[in-house]
Amino acid sequence: MSVEDEKQKIREVISTWMRASADGDTERVLSLMAEDVVFLVPGRPPMRGRAAFAAASSSFAAKMLFDGKSEIQEMEVAGDFAYCWSHLTLTVTPLPSGSPSKRAGHILSIFRKEADGHWVLFRDANMLTAV
Amino acid sequence: MSVEDEKQKIREVISTWMRASADGDTERVLSLMAEDVVFLVPGRPPMRGRAAFAAASSSFAAKMLFDGKSEIQEMEVAGDFAYCWSHLTLTVTPLPSGSPSKRAGHILSIFRKEADGHWVLFRDANMLTAV
Repeated sequence: MSVEDEKQKIREVISTWMRASADGDTERVLSLMAEDVVFLVPGRPPMRGRAAFAAASSSFAAKMLFDGKSEIQEMEVAGDFAYCWSHLTLTVTPLPSGSPSKRAGHILSIFRKEADGHWVLFRDANMLTAV
Repeated sequence: MSVEDEKQKIREVISTWMRASADGDTERVLSLMAEDVVFLVPGRPPMRGRAAFAAASSSFAAKMLFDGKSEIQEMEVAGDFAYCWSHLTLTVTPLPSGSPSKRAGHILSIFRKEADGHWVLFRDANMLTAV
């Protein structure tokens, strides 16, 4: 499989993530990350593991609507690893009704190719701030 | 050269960076990054290129003393790319005299192996916040 094919698979992971996230489909989002994923954000300890993401999502999913737009700036694939720099704009709306707030910024992500050929999110550096 | 040897070279780039930075040796720091390096931080546009780093440093170097401690959490090498997740604690002291302030947080970096075999910083996601 060519590097361009691998990049296309990673782009699909990202677009599926954005769509599933907007749909509140946490199960789908969880399927797109490694079991031992790590999320890094400013000012907080690392969030380690798919289970931690699931727990955080279950406390948010019923209370907020997430709608994001990801613009990929750059991607490189090297063996079973890839990195992707993207710019994300995220609108968060409290449920059942509330004023939407907007966050935007850069994301630097590491993707890993699993033994079955699927790419999953592995490490994620989130630099979003309130707009 | 084994993956472990490559990792050792990257660890040396990081430790040389920290030492040169503390010494105010901007030329040395510049030699450790790619010409087309990109620095990402929350709330600001990307800083692109070695020249932009040099310009930013020249306006800071005479005014502040930087002393940092980098603790590598994880590193993976794949071909000519590597990523490194580290935790950085940075003490910034205004010159000629002033109260030091502390910043800390995670860094997710992409290193690239140049044609001459040297590793350089290529992409850098900085999630430091005031402590």
